[in-house]
Amino acid sequence: MKATTDQASPKFVAPAARTVTFDQDGTTWVEQPMYTQVIYCLERVAVLAKAKPDLKDVEPFRTVLSGNREAMAKFTMPDLEEILAATLTGMTVEQFGVQVKDWLGTAKHPRFKRPYTELVYQPMLEVMRLFRANGYKIYFVTGGGQDFVRVYSEQVYGIPPEQVVGSAGGTKFGYDKAGRPMLTKEPKLLLNDDKAGKPEGIHLIIGRRPVAAFGNSIGDKQMLEYTQAGDGARLMMLVHHDDAAREYAYGPKSKIGTFSDELMAQSKKQGWVVISMKNDWKRIFAFE
Amino acid sequence: MKATTDQASPKFVAPAARTVTFDQDGTTWVEQPMYTQVIYCLERVAVLAKAKPDLKDVEPFRTVLSGNREAMAKFTMPDLEEILAATLTGMTVEQFGVQVKDWLGTAKHPRFKRPYTELVYQPMLEVMRLFRANGYKIYFVTGGGQDFVRVYSEQVYGIPPEQVVGSAGGTKFGYDKAGRPMLTKEPKLLLNDDKAGKPEGIHLIIGRRPVAAFGNSIGDKQMLEYTQAGDGARLMMLVHHDDAAREYAYGPKSKIGTFSDELMAQSKKQGWVVISMKNDWKRIFAFE
Repeated sequence: MKATTDQASPKFVAPAARTVTFDQDGTTWVEQPMYTQVIYCLERVAVLAKAKPDLKDVEPFRTVLSGNREAMAKFTMPDLEEILAATLTGMTVEQFGVQVKDWLGTAKHPRFKRPYTELVYQPMLEVMRLFRANGYKIYFVTGGGQDFVRVYSEQVYGIPPEQVVGSAGGTKFGYDKAGRPMLTKEPKLLLNDDKAGKPEGIHLIIGRRPVAAFGNSIGDKQMLEYTQAGDGARLMMLVHHDDAAREYAYGPKSKIGTFSDELMAQSKKQGWVVISMKNDWKRIFAFE
Repeated sequence: MKATTDQASPKFVAPAARTVTFDQDGTTWVEQPMYTQVIYCLERVAVLAKAKPDLKDVEPFRTVLSGNREAMAKFTMPDLEEILAATLTGMTVEQFGVQVKDWLGTAKHPRFKRPYTELVYQPMLEVMRLFRANGYKIYFVTGGGQDFVRVYSEQVYGIPPEQVVGSAGGTKFGYDKAGRPMLTKEPKLLLNDDKAGKPEGIHLIIGRRPVAAFGNSIGDKQMLEYTQAGDGARLMMLVHHDDAAREYAYGPKSKIGTFSDELMAQSKKQGWVVISMKNDWKRIFAFE
């Protein structure tokens, strides 16, 4: 890293170009047993059902409210889309921010019994700090919802809203009854920020190729390839979840955060650094 | 402005929230007799025709190559879309950057006989400098193409690529014949960054409401409304082109940069500052 800030070094990176991208789920915080935002959506259904009691008689909401995990695991894409639309759209962007903030203040992870925002990997916060100290600008490039992550990214990671690239739905500009302008969240996907969508999202929101990129799954492959294809000094890293005792151990067989054998082979071939959570991280969480 | 940086003032704006948005065409540079990017597209057709001579026999390219302005003025939306698709898509984002840069290096404005990048309003550069000196981050929010503006915005205005919000087409991630990752510009509009699309684009790319916004036409109305609707100190400004001698005088009747009577009435009612180019600006261009 030092070489990239030394003008005399062939690895020097101009200050304006010092851009680093991090995936979030599984790279900077826990993504098991389910993505945090999916848990939010499922738990949010109960809040909606208080205002609209009829929901409990309508699928897929009935199943969500029953708490039957096995039945939920069988949801089809249209089922999931209906749940996402009901919980992530239809409100103003400010209302959504309040809803997420309220939930984060009370929700607890089923295994760790702590707020989700405490399940952040301490070594990654340290890496971010090191990059910042060397003049790098840090972006999230996450498959998670851009508006969801923006609610807490500044407080938890020091990443401001304008540096969050995420899956993004459209908004619609309009006026409330008092004639005040507002932006309402729409059920229309503008950017699916996963796999090929990651470099595409980086171009749309940042317009620069990152110098370093961090991920943990097949969803990050294209972002790492795109990062590596630039000139000069490059750093590509993947977190490997191999620590069932302290966090989780999962890999090619996991639906969430799949780290396929092909990805491991590609990492070796292309010189991407694979971090073993078990062997390389002394401390995973700040609360340990 | 000083009050917004004074912690003791009720108008204080937290450093992280210091966000200012500028429209480009007609607000920070000349947009008459035609938007610069449209001129680019039309002139680019001639370059394309050198590689593909058959183009000269196919409409709407034949008309463009004929230079017949009257006939071009009658182009339908599908005609224009075909020209935009041919000149703005199909290449990698890097190739596009080179194409635009090459053109900017030689093209001249028909009236001023100078490069388009010199037709920048000096008072606006001074306003930007003043904002920057007070810790404000400056964004373009332009109906023009995001990738087009990014080519020169840093050099001409000091606005880096990640602070350019513009009309944006999709890109497609793929690999070239050598297996190197690349992003190709696609003929698919993701964001029409005009009128209601401006606050929508601000939310997508920045995720913060601006504290001040600058525009010059009905395309900027929603951005100014959205800016004004926030709490605390606010500044909304519109440039009025009323100087035919030094630049152009146009208003409600102009197709390009329409400043309607309704917009003028709304500006007065809502306290938006209308800048008279003729009376308020001693010097318009740096070269004067």
